[in-house]
Amino acid sequence: MQSIAQYQEVISEHFNALQVKKTPNNLYEPISYILSLGGKRMRPVLTLMTAEIFDTNYKKALNAATAIEVFHNFSLIHDDIMDDAPLRRGKETVHEKWDINTGILSGDAMLILAYQYFENYEPAIFQKLAKLFSKTALEVCEGQQYDVDFETREDVTIPEYLKMIEFKTAVLVGAAMKMGAIVAETSEENANLIYDFGLNLGIAFQLQDDYLDAFGDPKTFGKQVGGDIIENKKTYLYLKAMEYSSAENREMISHLFSIQPSVNTDKVNSVKELFNVTGASNATQEAIELYTQKAFEKLSKLEICVDKKKLLRAFGESLMKRNV
Amino acid sequence: MQSIAQYQEVISEHFNALQVKKTPNNLYEPISYILSLGGKRMRPVLTLMTAEIFDTNYKKALNAATAIEVFHNFSLIHDDIMDDAPLRRGKETVHEKWDINTGILSGDAMLILAYQYFENYEPAIFQKLAKLFSKTALEVCEGQQYDVDFETREDVTIPEYLKMIEFKTAVLVGAAMKMGAIVAETSEENANLIYDFGLNLGIAFQLQDDYLDAFGDPKTFGKQVGGDIIENKKTYLYLKAMEYSSAENREMISHLFSIQPSVNTDKVNSVKELFNVTGASNATQEAIELYTQKAFEKLSKLEICVDKKKLLRAFGESLMKRNV
Repeated sequence: MQSIAQYQEVISEHFNALQVKKTPNNLYEPISYILSLGGKRMRPVLTLMTAEIFDTNYKKALNAATAIEVFHNFSLIHDDIMDDAPLRRGKETVHEKWDINTGILSGDAMLILAYQYFENYEPAIFQKLAKLFSKTALEVCEGQQYDVDFETREDVTIPEYLKMIEFKTAVLVGAAMKMGAIVAETSEENANLIYDFGLNLGIAFQLQDDYLDAFGDPKTFGKQVGGDIIENKKTYLYLKAMEYSSAENREMISHLFSIQPSVNTDKVNSVKELFNVTGASNATQEAIELYTQKAFEKLSKLEICVDKKKLLRAFGESLMKRNV
Repeated sequence: MQSIAQYQEVISEHFNALQVKKTPNNLYEPISYILSLGGKRMRPVLTLMTAEIFDTNYKKALNAATAIEVFHNFSLIHDDIMDDAPLRRGKETVHEKWDINTGILSGDAMLILAYQYFENYEPAIFQKLAKLFSKTALEVCEGQQYDVDFETREDVTIPEYLKMIEFKTAVLVGAAMKMGAIVAETSEENANLIYDFGLNLGIAFQLQDDYLDAFGDPKTFGKQVGGDIIENKKTYLYLKAMEYSSAENREMISHLFSIQPSVNTDKVNSVKELFNVTGASNATQEAIELYTQKAFEKLSKLEICVDKKKLLRAFGESLMKRNV
């Protein structure tokens, strides 16, 4: 086993050396571009790590890991078009640097390329990987659609919100790990347990992202703190605050989530105070803890040696101990 | 074996009964919509027919045929966005009826759904189908990119144009037939021959489409005759006319392909006359004949009984004997 940093190094080198570029240039250049923007590469790292957890050299999992990362970047290109986002990882988005049509077509090609990386496995493994991949990819599309739908709905429930973040984010984390398990040809039980571990950790991670967006340390949180509040995004914090509020506070929150002042300091501070007094902040932290514990429960059932369980637990804990 | 009309009936009933609709509605309704618009369903029909050519009940090929048709409709949704097309089969396009974001995301979901139809086959067949599908789908994207690139290029060569129509149109015809062969588990040789048959027939068909667009009978040709000329599209006819022209005629053609008059009758007639006098019309008919003959040569090498060869030849001939 290697450290997360070492797997990241492996993935980073792998993507630096990856040749996708061929003709027509206008189709493949945007693909090389988005794949070169980097990022934490957390998903492919999890695939490699999981393969080794189940006693298989990570190299055997490199193609599956590549497929996961290429797919993730496909979804970023298409999501950025839909969100009209100008920047991705501090650089121009594909549709900004080229145009929307290029973003659509290069994204399509990446979705297909992702499947092609599975072709390096023998038929039985190939089918398992491709089936899991299709199921997951479709769920990611569904999660994105729910996210779009929720923007214009006022009656989103907590279970609906949880399902949205599960589909949009968490299933890909679970799938990234399960692919490592599939490549390692471990038991069906182990493969499903590691999927559930990743899934629950993914939900916890996304809820924590909601929390940190409001209450994170501006020095260490990657994005603008208060960004969700400024954009009137109905996150877990918002939904819980509305649920727990008095009629008066509910009206106040509704009002604050309808305005777009030119200076946002007062708005952000007022909303954060309401998140605290209504108990939404506590409820969110409890939910993060709940899903983290759910993930760890799955760990305990895994049939692997104690050291490896400790490693996965340490990984989970380090992930969930970002600066709150 | 059944007739083409009977296979069309089978496919039509199959798509009428096909259930893709589930939540979220906003993702799946556009998919049901585009799949309900009909069309000739030529690609899935070819898959069924080919399975039976190789002595396998067409029912076994239904899932592969469905994948091909779902993919084809995915490409229509995304192409229509890129072309800003308002109508498809006489009805509103998906991005017109909903919006561009819906078109992107529902299209993405269809590309994934197409792969899922292969899951009904056992691993070895699944891998063969999925590999052929990925290769073909990527080529279709590349063909679309070439088509986009050619719009702003003045130096497109005949071989480049042929490669573009091969990728954008013909490979999917070849793949549709080869999938029938794969499902039927015929020899590799037969599978490749039927692919080449479909590929060459697909090229011939597309060249014929270029020809009929200018010289077809308005009563029987589905689209507006002269449409390509009105849109200044550089088709095979245009490229050959430029190649065969005197300097004077070349300038005339260039001019005619740069203007967009409000009434097009004179322009269309002048261009058609130039296509005739330069020999471009004849050259196009010769190319159609050449690719049709190439297709028939592949037929002769197939290891199937004479009756079935006759059937495929009759199909090819009927396809190429649209009203000229």
